[in-house]
Amino acid sequence: MVGSMGNGSMDLREREKAEPLPKEFEPKEMVDAVPPLRTDTVEEEEKRTSREIVLGRNVHTMCLEVKEPEDDDEVTGDREAYMASVLARYRRSLIDRTKHHLGYPYNLDFDYGALSHLQHFSINNLGDPFIESNYGVHSRQFEVGVLDWFARLWELEKNEYWGYITNCGTEGNLHGILVGREVFPNGVLYASKESHYSVFKAARMYRMECVKVATLVSGEINCADFKAKLLQNKEKPAIINVNIGTTVKGAVDDLDLVIQTLEENGFKDRFYIHCDGALFGLMMPFVKRAPKVTFKKPIGSVSVSGHKFVGCPMPCGVQITRLEHINALSSNVEYLASRDATIMGSRNGHAPIFLWYTLNRKGYRGFRKEVQKCLRNAHYLKDRLKEAGISVMLNELSSTVVFERPKDEDFVRQWQLACEGNIAHAVVMPNVTIEKLDHFLGELLEKRSLWYQEGKSSPPCIAAEVGEINCLCSMHKK
Amino acid sequence: MVGSMGNGSMDLREREKAEPLPKEFEPKEMVDAVPPLRTDTVEEEEKRTSREIVLGRNVHTMCLEVKEPEDDDEVTGDREAYMASVLARYRRSLIDRTKHHLGYPYNLDFDYGALSHLQHFSINNLGDPFIESNYGVHSRQFEVGVLDWFARLWELEKNEYWGYITNCGTEGNLHGILVGREVFPNGVLYASKESHYSVFKAARMYRMECVKVATLVSGEINCADFKAKLLQNKEKPAIINVNIGTTVKGAVDDLDLVIQTLEENGFKDRFYIHCDGALFGLMMPFVKRAPKVTFKKPIGSVSVSGHKFVGCPMPCGVQITRLEHINALSSNVEYLASRDATIMGSRNGHAPIFLWYTLNRKGYRGFRKEVQKCLRNAHYLKDRLKEAGISVMLNELSSTVVFERPKDEDFVRQWQLACEGNIAHAVVMPNVTIEKLDHFLGELLEKRSLWYQEGKSSPPCIAAEVGEINCLCSMHKK
Repeated sequence: MVGSMGNGSMDLREREKAEPLPKEFEPKEMVDAVPPLRTDTVEEEEKRTSREIVLGRNVHTMCLEVKEPEDDDEVTGDREAYMASVLARYRRSLIDRTKHHLGYPYNLDFDYGALSHLQHFSINNLGDPFIESNYGVHSRQFEVGVLDWFARLWELEKNEYWGYITNCGTEGNLHGILVGREVFPNGVLYASKESHYSVFKAARMYRMECVKVATLVSGEINCADFKAKLLQNKEKPAIINVNIGTTVKGAVDDLDLVIQTLEENGFKDRFYIHCDGALFGLMMPFVKRAPKVTFKKPIGSVSVSGHKFVGCPMPCGVQITRLEHINALSSNVEYLASRDATIMGSRNGHAPIFLWYTLNRKGYRGFRKEVQKCLRNAHYLKDRLKEAGISVMLNELSSTVVFERPKDEDFVRQWQLACEGNIAHAVVMPNVTIEKLDHFLGELLEKRSLWYQEGKSSPPCIAAEVGEINCLCSMHKK
Repeated sequence: MVGSMGNGSMDLREREKAEPLPKEFEPKEMVDAVPPLRTDTVEEEEKRTSREIVLGRNVHTMCLEVKEPEDDDEVTGDREAYMASVLARYRRSLIDRTKHHLGYPYNLDFDYGALSHLQHFSINNLGDPFIESNYGVHSRQFEVGVLDWFARLWELEKNEYWGYITNCGTEGNLHGILVGREVFPNGVLYASKESHYSVFKAARMYRMECVKVATLVSGEINCADFKAKLLQNKEKPAIINVNIGTTVKGAVDDLDLVIQTLEENGFKDRFYIHCDGALFGLMMPFVKRAPKVTFKKPIGSVSVSGHKFVGCPMPCGVQITRLEHINALSSNVEYLASRDATIMGSRNGHAPIFLWYTLNRKGYRGFRKEVQKCLRNAHYLKDRLKEAGISVMLNELSSTVVFERPKDEDFVRQWQLACEGNIAHAVVMPNVTIEKLDHFLGELLEKRSLWYQEGKSSPPCIAAEVGEINCLCSMHKK
């Protein structure tokens, strides 16, 4: 409790009851100096500043220093007042930054007020969700409820799946690829070059051979190139990362064609597919024309982020895989006292409760309705941009609108657009309303008329990124 | 917002404004069926139950199912009422479980009420803390403030360190060992057999050669055995995990002796030390007699958990390493658009604010006071157990009290004691008061007199685990 760590009455009572401290723990034996605070000399300041070049904008210069409390802080209340003012300012900036947010696929439209009375418990789902731990302050009962829901969505029976709630999409990919490697220790990892960077990070971490596969203009994996690459490594099993929505273009790899390519080229029963469904893993099941992600097909694992389409105040994700793979994995870890099939040990116990709450409120029908709204609004954005003469691409069944990168970095930052080369994207999530899009479009068109006035410069050509048909630069405009 | 996802006025307004939905997204093209719910047959039920043997107590049987809302739920309010009752029951159990908690080193004594108004923001510190991201709803300014504080504690200059706030102690170990492997790609990993399981998990994940080193009875690394193992692998550099408080016995490896052993056996400038300070990393600096963890010694990285001694509602940790190592690491990841030196991509942005808040409130002096209290209370517990004739060990400078495993598993579960073989431990954290210990001791002594009455059975000998001097079994009792 706040205040109880000082010399409150509780403390005094204990002190009376406690035995005298053994000599070696006497206060005089405690380190009494606060570590020396260092002030940079001019040369050091220069050296430190030069770090910016290496590391990007140096956050030290704007960081909120932790200050050692003064002895009388508890009396004067100065410290509390200082902290309250910092937090109030921060909250204001969060409100503004949340309002102007288009580039990241996070659904910011949630209200977890009903859960606020749980926020101050230290909830930790240590290790495996299906194995009881002696630590009692956990939320496994919520976690398994959520996992069951996703297993049902992806059509894997309760007695055939294993999974857990992860800290983020990256952890899902790290886990799926690790399971693949344990199933096929000498397997080669294949992933399209537009896969999330965590896939390549996994290859490096796990010391796996990794082959990058080319993509189509849409961002989907190019299965002709995939075939060619497979044939170069015929003797080794294949571990494939399939994107259910790439990060930049929202492209959905054709799962069926990937499986067909594998089976037709001699890899039958010698492949493991991990589906990275960070964003669209939860959207696609609700759209009929989308390639279906289901464990009725020969896939090994699926991961999806919880803070994206569902919406959650902290990053989290869901990982579902086949129980048989996990049993194989865990038989190999006999040196561990307990089964340890998760990447992280201690796991955030609040995230499952947030997810459970939202799934219960919305249900499959509620998500279907939201998917519909997002797709509709994404088309609205695409059409308005096109009308205004701006190069734009929207993949079928995606809510990620890719368009010409705005010339002004302040504008990019203001709207928190994710950019790559000459393209930017906006991800239309349930919290992105037509009003918000109109606000964005109004600002963009106003600024753009200034950026490109009097023909001094012209908008970039992005035909290479979005295809000639979507490019409206001076060369490709019809 | 709650309610806004239905057919509220906002939704209707949008629908009026929006263009008609392209044909392929018409509602009739949406998947309309809820995935079929499966009911187990008797055979399947048996099969499912048999899973318990493989996976431990099957949480499915007690999990909180996610139920599809009925169409009229929003009208009747039944759904809200159901969820509220589940959450209220859960909260009551959390209060009870939090009260009876001795076995895990989590400080449950915190009050973050002042931060409750930030809980509903989706705060995400994507990637590197020192590189700005376009996602604006972050808390890097708090994160770097916290990192600076820890770098100062462990004596590494601002312009020489790199670090980030992790999801848990495991992520810290995974990171530290990965940095070690990148510095010495053919290095052999050495860790005492009482190291945290995540260290051996890392070796497996990273495909590193790993050598287990014996321990002393105290749980510390046995440097004679370490030397012998080193000499068997003379040609390869050494990567060493040094425990600043082992999980089970709270033993602190002798960092100075480890370094001396390395240097005297031909490993000078050919080793990388990662210090796993999960719990004691934050306690040791405040105790004079403890081996000092400092970057003035040739160590490469230190990790500590945030939800342990500091106290935080969700698992988190702090990782500090030398900037030079990270620059080496990042020069190798040129295939990434951005620098990516963290294990996870999306990172919980709430944890840094919790830590920043507590560090500011308590400061170095506040932590020193709490360390003192914990050590004193741990000695109190040890002395009371010994007086009662119970085998017990308390490592010098540790607050982890190791004692004879209580015979009754319900008692173990009730007090959430972590057990291994014949020993159990209680970790005295700031929230463990003398009152709580007296409550625990009272119950233990009462039950124990029943377990071992009439000499039918006698308490186990734990001399192998805690040494003959600490064992009070019938054979070793003097």
